[in-house]
Amino acid sequence: MIPVIISGGSGSRLWPVSRLADPKPFLKLSDGHSLLQNTFSRAINLPDVNALITVTNEKLHFRMQDEYQQLNDNKIACDFILEPFGRNTAPAVATAALFAKEKYGEDEILLILPADHLISDGEAFNEAVHGAILAARQGYIATFGIKPEYAETGYGYIEANIDKPITDKAYLVNRFVEKPNPELANKYINSGHYLWNSGMFCGKISTFIAEFELYAKNLLATTKECLAKSPRDKLSNSTIIHLSSSLFIQTENISIDYALFEKTYKAAVLPCSIGWSDIGSWLSIAQNLPKDKHNNATIGENILHNSKNCLVYSTNRIVAGVDIENLIIVDTPDAILVVNKDYSQNVKLIFERLKNMEHKTSELHQTAHRPWGTYTVLEEGPLYKIKRIEVKPGASLSLQMHHHRSEHWIVVDGVATVTNGDNVLELKSNQSTYIPIESRHRLENKTDKNLVLIEVQCGQYLGEDDIVRFEDKYGRTQ
Amino acid sequence: MIPVIISGGSGSRLWPVSRLADPKPFLKLSDGHSLLQNTFSRAINLPDVNALITVTNEKLHFRMQDEYQQLNDNKIACDFILEPFGRNTAPAVATAALFAKEKYGEDEILLILPADHLISDGEAFNEAVHGAILAARQGYIATFGIKPEYAETGYGYIEANIDKPITDKAYLVNRFVEKPNPELANKYINSGHYLWNSGMFCGKISTFIAEFELYAKNLLATTKECLAKSPRDKLSNSTIIHLSSSLFIQTENISIDYALFEKTYKAAVLPCSIGWSDIGSWLSIAQNLPKDKHNNATIGENILHNSKNCLVYSTNRIVAGVDIENLIIVDTPDAILVVNKDYSQNVKLIFERLKNMEHKTSELHQTAHRPWGTYTVLEEGPLYKIKRIEVKPGASLSLQMHHHRSEHWIVVDGVATVTNGDNVLELKSNQSTYIPIESRHRLENKTDKNLVLIEVQCGQYLGEDDIVRFEDKYGRTQ
Repeated sequence: MIPVIISGGSGSRLWPVSRLADPKPFLKLSDGHSLLQNTFSRAINLPDVNALITVTNEKLHFRMQDEYQQLNDNKIACDFILEPFGRNTAPAVATAALFAKEKYGEDEILLILPADHLISDGEAFNEAVHGAILAARQGYIATFGIKPEYAETGYGYIEANIDKPITDKAYLVNRFVEKPNPELANKYINSGHYLWNSGMFCGKISTFIAEFELYAKNLLATTKECLAKSPRDKLSNSTIIHLSSSLFIQTENISIDYALFEKTYKAAVLPCSIGWSDIGSWLSIAQNLPKDKHNNATIGENILHNSKNCLVYSTNRIVAGVDIENLIIVDTPDAILVVNKDYSQNVKLIFERLKNMEHKTSELHQTAHRPWGTYTVLEEGPLYKIKRIEVKPGASLSLQMHHHRSEHWIVVDGVATVTNGDNVLELKSNQSTYIPIESRHRLENKTDKNLVLIEVQCGQYLGEDDIVRFEDKYGRTQ
Repeated sequence: MIPVIISGGSGSRLWPVSRLADPKPFLKLSDGHSLLQNTFSRAINLPDVNALITVTNEKLHFRMQDEYQQLNDNKIACDFILEPFGRNTAPAVATAALFAKEKYGEDEILLILPADHLISDGEAFNEAVHGAILAARQGYIATFGIKPEYAETGYGYIEANIDKPITDKAYLVNRFVEKPNPELANKYINSGHYLWNSGMFCGKISTFIAEFELYAKNLLATTKECLAKSPRDKLSNSTIIHLSSSLFIQTENISIDYALFEKTYKAAVLPCSIGWSDIGSWLSIAQNLPKDKHNNATIGENILHNSKNCLVYSTNRIVAGVDIENLIIVDTPDAILVVNKDYSQNVKLIFERLKNMEHKTSELHQTAHRPWGTYTVLEEGPLYKIKRIEVKPGASLSLQMHHHRSEHWIVVDGVATVTNGDNVLELKSNQSTYIPIESRHRLENKTDKNLVLIEVQCGQYLGEDDIVRFEDKYGRTQ
């Protein structure tokens, strides 16, 4: 079986932790791992998994690869299908199926997993996957139907046809229904055979392709052409496909639910209870964290006085709550959110406003991820900017030059190999160097340990766009 | 007339903005000036004011001097009486009166002003002071009685003896009463002749001394001895007195209300409405700020959605509020407070807990004030610490040495004169130098503009106590 991790949504209701360049899959809860990493772990630890495919945005590739690498002890082959922009789930699934057929043959089973869901009961998940595989082997596409806990109006539902079991655990699907109003949601709950649509599903490659052929012929043809004509990087045991934007834009922007599930007769549903949540809002995060005796959930340093039913999420500051109730407080280095728990959906509105204002907190965190590592802006003054730069083992920044700024570099941990004009020098912790304006320079970490460096930029103009790249090992140009 | 600014309380209910080393007088509201600066401006702009005395803690001296300097265009003589520790208001007033008698003679009038009150109606204040002076000239100590706006239980009250006017605006005091319970407070309000005790008062030096002689003879004697035997710095037109701790501790730790006002027959009260608040809590700050149409008061960048009756105070981050009500949110670089407006008194409990934990946010801000300027900790890692150091024109850090850390200095604005071992060099913006471990070094700003420098410390131990001082122009040793 080949798990396919699909990374889509932005998580605008999880601002200020989720941002355009830092979407929901990278959200870390209390275990120190991101939602993505937990999805990856769940996937690769399933029996008989030797390869995994990820469909994601081109921009997130290196960061996802890094997150996988921390956990991929058995060096499972990780193929990436990189989208230039989002086209909803149907083109993503079709492309993954076509690529998997080409690489692994059409009899393999695909397990499609959104990158940003929470599943707290790993054992139940494994069992459910086992049940889904049995249905998939019979030519069905088995969806995972979560036994509903309450009349949620934020999820779609799947009606199981309980008169038509196809295995001892799965049923044919009667119909898929969209997010209901509260009245309908209650009806669904009471009926006993409606399940939450988790967005996870499982089927043979041949089944997917046959069903696309039947119900989304054009979509299959356009994704096929796009896949065939897009450039690929072939590494030792994995392939990186950069989907061509001019071809990918020809594919239909449509969800797999519309394109396939609402039409096919092959949909099955496997009712299960696996502690699933799609972590759609801060409220759902609060619901999924352990609580103290006053029903407060906290991550990070905090001190609460006479407060109850709150979620406090902080990264590097202490948060004090005094006589507060039913609030969600989220602290990040450059933005703070305080929201009434009953209205956590409205965080999306704040995010939209900030995006429209082009406010920096809608786009980027102070820590930005790059193929070679990260940089964190520590302070910006009128004539200077200070960054902490962390370079991964073996990584290298581009050979570059700035027209308007000079840079002072001080190594605080690890060893830097610095190209500065015609010189190449090695700097250890507590050593420094100076890169004058217009000097060609490069920073490399040739060791197997992280390199940490403080950069003080001086100049009249300090924008990130003042960079001329001469060489870049990650294929980045201007 | 000589205004006497007395700086006492810590402002623990105004945490996280007020801290042990950053007490309430330094709180800045929306006009960009601190409460202290506004008190100073009010004082020096009164008619016939040519000198001012400040009684404050030794540790706050340089910072207060800096704050005054920004506003002291007419170079009014500013004497400082520096206490080694707080002994409540009676010793402070007695010492100020004795010093003023010695310097200005006993016929001058003193106007005692707490450093951290808000007075929004400057014109009414000036008029009230005029009225107080008339009473003072007749040998009274005129207190400023604020016409109460509601039945406040957090203030002391003054009962005016309305049958005994002593001028056309002031009355003899019937009695001083302590903070009442709500029932009593209501009674006071309804009576019409109870006033809030603002803590401001005015009297001739000779009156103060005579009354101390009568009712607090021992206090007067001990403060007299302490004043006489404490070391003084005499500058061109001002004197700095460093009260000796071994003598100052002999003075009684008592308020002027207990020591004098509750006993004297010379107390007068001048009813007035001057927009006074003692800014005792975040609630009172909220009450004294302008509001938007949803009754929200804000300082700093913020975005509020469907929120009302809130105070949002932020320094350098955006704060988003979503569907919140009746909250106070205060953001500082290293601590955030969210408090129910009805319980803002309880912030004191948080402060006390943090103090007991010796939590850094109870003591210092990330920006620390020093006689020569400020430093701000931008980041601390396991092996490094980054500071922005700002040195005032003409100021100089001590000649010093560190056993455990080396320092990289990069000038980003201004010109630094750097002593490094046997060398002295001048560094301009974009120039840097390296101070090795155990090298004697000094940083000076010999220019008339601010110097801004980024310091990256490297070492195994980075505590502020790793400093050996050889010379210090501010008299600091270890």
